[in-house]
Amino acid sequence: MERTYRLVISCPDQAGIVAAVSDFIARLGGWITEAHHYTDPGSQWFFMRYVVRADSIPFELAEFRARFALTAQSFGMHWFINDSGIKPRVVLLASKQAHCLSDLLYRWRSHELDCEIPAVLSNHDDLRGYVEWHGIAYHHLAVDPGNKDQHFAAVRERISDARADVIVLARYMQILPPELCAEYPARIINIHHSFLPSFVGARPYHQASERGVKLIGATCHYVTRELDAGPIIEQDVVRVNHHNTVEDMVRLGRDVEKMVLARGLRYHLEDRVLVHGNKTIVFA
Amino acid sequence: MERTYRLVISCPDQAGIVAAVSDFIARLGGWITEAHHYTDPGSQWFFMRYVVRADSIPFELAEFRARFALTAQSFGMHWFINDSGIKPRVVLLASKQAHCLSDLLYRWRSHELDCEIPAVLSNHDDLRGYVEWHGIAYHHLAVDPGNKDQHFAAVRERISDARADVIVLARYMQILPPELCAEYPARIINIHHSFLPSFVGARPYHQASERGVKLIGATCHYVTRELDAGPIIEQDVVRVNHHNTVEDMVRLGRDVEKMVLARGLRYHLEDRVLVHGNKTIVFA
Amino acid sequence: MERTYRLVISCPDQAGIVAAVSDFIARLGGWITEAHHYTDPGSQWFFMRYVVRADSIPFELAEFRARFALTAQSFGMHWFINDSGIKPRVVLLASKQAHCLSDLLYRWRSHELDCEIPAVLSNHDDLRGYVEWHGIAYHHLAVDPGNKDQHFAAVRERISDARADVIVLARYMQILPPELCAEYPARIINIHHSFLPSFVGARPYHQASERGVKLIGATCHYVTRELDAGPIIEQDVVRVNHHNTVEDMVRLGRDVEKMVLARGLRYHLEDRVLVHGNKTIVFA
Amino acid sequence: MERTYRLVISCPDQAGIVAAVSDFIARLGGWITEAHHYTDPGSQWFFMRYVVRADSIPFELAEFRARFALTAQSFGMHWFINDSGIKPRVVLLASKQAHCLSDLLYRWRSHELDCEIPAVLSNHDDLRGYVEWHGIAYHHLAVDPGNKDQHFAAVRERISDARADVIVLARYMQILPPELCAEYPARIINIHHSFLPSFVGARPYHQASERGVKLIGATCHYVTRELDAGPIIEQDVVRVNHHNTVEDMVRLGRDVEKMVLARGLRYHLEDRVLVHGNKTIVFA
Repeated sequence: MERTYRLVISCPDQAGIVAAVSDFIARLGGWITEAHHYTDPGSQWFFMRYVVRADSIPFELAEFRARFALTAQSFGMHWFINDSGIKPRVVLLASKQAHCLSDLLYRWRSHELDCEIPAVLSNHDDLRGYVEWHGIAYHHLAVDPGNKDQHFAAVRERISDARADVIVLARYMQILPPELCAEYPARIINIHHSFLPSFVGARPYHQASERGVKLIGATCHYVTRELDAGPIIEQDVVRVNHHNTVEDMVRLGRDVEKMVLARGLRYHLEDRVLVHGNKTIVFA
Repeated sequence: MERTYRLVISCPDQAGIVAAVSDFIARLGGWITEAHHYTDPGSQWFFMRYVVRADSIPFELAEFRARFALTAQSFGMHWFINDSGIKPRVVLLASKQAHCLSDLLYRWRSHELDCEIPAVLSNHDDLRGYVEWHGIAYHHLAVDPGNKDQHFAAVRERISDARADVIVLARYMQILPPELCAEYPARIINIHHSFLPSFVGARPYHQASERGVKLIGATCHYVTRELDAGPIIEQDVVRVNHHNTVEDMVRLGRDVEKMVLARGLRYHLEDRVLVHGNKTIVFA
Repeated sequence: MERTYRLVISCPDQAGIVAAVSDFIARLGGWITEAHHYTDPGSQWFFMRYVVRADSIPFELAEFRARFALTAQSFGMHWFINDSGIKPRVVLLASKQAHCLSDLLYRWRSHELDCEIPAVLSNHDDLRGYVEWHGIAYHHLAVDPGNKDQHFAAVRERISDARADVIVLARYMQILPPELCAEYPARIINIHHSFLPSFVGARPYHQASERGVKLIGATCHYVTRELDAGPIIEQDVVRVNHHNTVEDMVRLGRDVEKMVLARGLRYHLEDRVLVHGNKTIVFA
Repeated sequence: MERTYRLVISCPDQAGIVAAVSDFIARLGGWITEAHHYTDPGSQWFFMRYVVRADSIPFELAEFRARFALTAQSFGMHWFINDSGIKPRVVLLASKQAHCLSDLLYRWRSHELDCEIPAVLSNHDDLRGYVEWHGIAYHHLAVDPGNKDQHFAAVRERISDARADVIVLARYMQILPPELCAEYPARIINIHHSFLPSFVGARPYHQASERGVKLIGATCHYVTRELDAGPIIEQDVVRVNHHNTVEDMVRLGRDVEKMVLARGLRYHLEDRVLVHGNKTIVFA
């Protein structure tokens, strides 16, 4: 894969933004290989993502950032530019279920996911052998139900030690405390089952089975303080019928969960996901 | 299409049901062309649907019913047998939106849906010309918001006059009174939009857009006293992205609504849908 | 819907194209509401589509075209700009099957498809009443198998009389002569069934059934001289199983055909489809 | 999971088959928990699959087989009955690509696939470490292009040594010799990419990209002497667009391949797949 820079911008829409940005890049001789724009019609907020060949820019990113700052300021841009050569660091949080973890580790070791995985944290020790076979550190951080704060303090420390850019809840089954959510805005990714319609409360698969739903799905979203209500990155469904027991539905749900999480994480790692209020723009 | 009989049975499961029923049919020389069985593992309730060639049974259905009654009684069966040569009578209730109605009328006039449509009822007059071109009676029954009872009394009378076997709410946009729902159990079919997750309250498409959902869907279900909570017959979804405005989502929703309603109604007309508590078994 | 201009461009890729175009529009005070770019990595060919609010441009399109010509020339652009206020004229060619025709006419009369339909041509008279109810001219042009040239001469004349911008083969079931295909490049849209894998020769649904395929699909494509091998605009599939007879598969195939054709035509009418060699870029 | 027996039957259709079989089981006090019937309308061939609780049958399978033989003979049945407590032995053949292998091994070690995997054979040594971590024997059987017979002789011997019931070509990338295919009829399962339409010849993904296909798929089928033309067990597709490079399409193809293979193998292991001529009946 050739090395590229990914320039991601959002700002209030106005005439001339694209002209200014593309002119800036053109003057440097920059070669744009992928470009997405979008204006949200409700808020009139503008979003763009450019991929530029690294070898077409005559200096390093620090210099690019310094030079672009003036343009960015004049339009009130929120912006960043990332180097595809610097791999984001992803920490995975898991519990006992292996389907999402296994799938992500396969994609990582086959170089399909372009990231580092410095550590896996889990409140159980079950997956240690599998994770360590990959040469990845495994931290078993048990949960004392009477003192969850202790657990989360340990989680927080390990994440910090690992210098995580992204945290993936790969069926972690614990609710993160709000302060931790707030510390990593749009950087904690969760996957959970979804249904049409939703089933609130305990044992949603049983409720879905009792209602005879014909589709079960999964939603990949950023974690916010409000449980399972953060911006949606990706979703998908699988068809079920009356022959499928609750166990079948859970099994089919696992398949759609692992696929949706893998797609969502990939979009995030490639800087394709822009958050706007409680929704995402995904330049897929 | 060859004429067939559709025998549909449900009863508590026990050994010997299939043997008894298939032996009964075999002794008559009956030729089974399609067979479905299912036992619900939770309730241990048994369901079956047999399709038998009419010309393989040496007498008429009245005689069949009389002879089968003893077998049925001994197993405590709920059962019926329908003649494919007698078309069910479907009354459509519509409002202003034409997508479901148009699609169903196309399927009816091209003989894809095997039913009679004696009447279309609507609280608006907009669709009269289109319906009447098909040679179908159109009844405009206006809704007086201050006296909805009058409207529903008229609806009920028209349905009764039309000797409706099935009532389809093809985007009718009115909530039927509970008594009317109770009068036609598992015979009133509705279609409504669905999302993952659900959005309760007004303007669900706007809520879905603000949350950035990636899938929107439709659910076809039987109408019960509890609004939009009856047994689900069929569901499907369509993918959306941030480029889709609320208007686009509504438009894409219409497409999935009309397809899901047409499939659900077809299953019903072919006696493929068995209701069990609040779920359906669909022998599709 | 607000009136917009749709500027569609393709040319060899080089630095500065986006800068030049967006600068040109910005200087006019033009308000871009939708923007798509794409560079084909193999051919290094660049494609873009901008939607600009008509009321943000201080003069009419003739003036825009004159002023933009210089910029366009300097980059060797193929380009056009269309006014959403001028509806494209679509001529439908049909045979006996009504599913695609009915669906398109519903979308037209409900203003979902933004076009004129000046005429429907058919080699059979079956659909006359339905078409004429819509106030659309119906031309029955019979096919003499011994003299197909005569038929196609009549078709060509009617298309020309109707000043068609787009020709839709809505299950027309005749192979257009190469000269007619060449006369309307990327302006004749066809729909046909598709399978995985393909089944060459007669009765493909029977072949598919005998192979036990689990998916059947439909492909919407531009018509070129080579039968069914033109650039693909849209595709979709539907799931089938062993219970589905050949007749069921044909019926399910009709549903996916009509949906895929409607989506493909919509993309075309909104100038979202750019042809490049034998493929399309669809800015959906 | 409770232990069950799976009785699978096919024979020419006639009146009385279901009655005879269900009566036979009822007389034993057998408890049927799942039942599927199907008659192929073209060939008038009958298929059935019954799942019976093992603890409801008062003797072992040898006795069942002896007693059922007379009934089976009188109807000319092809039949077998399997014990869910005896796990089928699956040998995996792989090459360098790990996506299907990884996914199957995850499902095996999490007990989702109910089978033994005594060995993995490969013409490369790349996947040894991963396979051996699972405690599964890995045999590297190199291919000498000038003497493929030697390779296949070794493959055949290893399969035989492993007493394989099923052979899965998990992206094995070699064409099995016809004799080997004939030795394991309906017991060798392959996965390969599929497109609408098909692309014959080399580099199909490149061809598909050049044609601008919008869907790519995968087909899981039994291997027969005719390459990639055996009975189809399962298929699925994934949507692509012009932004997807050939590499993206290959990656997305891997995802659909692994899911389709896993589903197809599961159906096979549960005796849900009945082969009839060149098609399958899948009692899913």
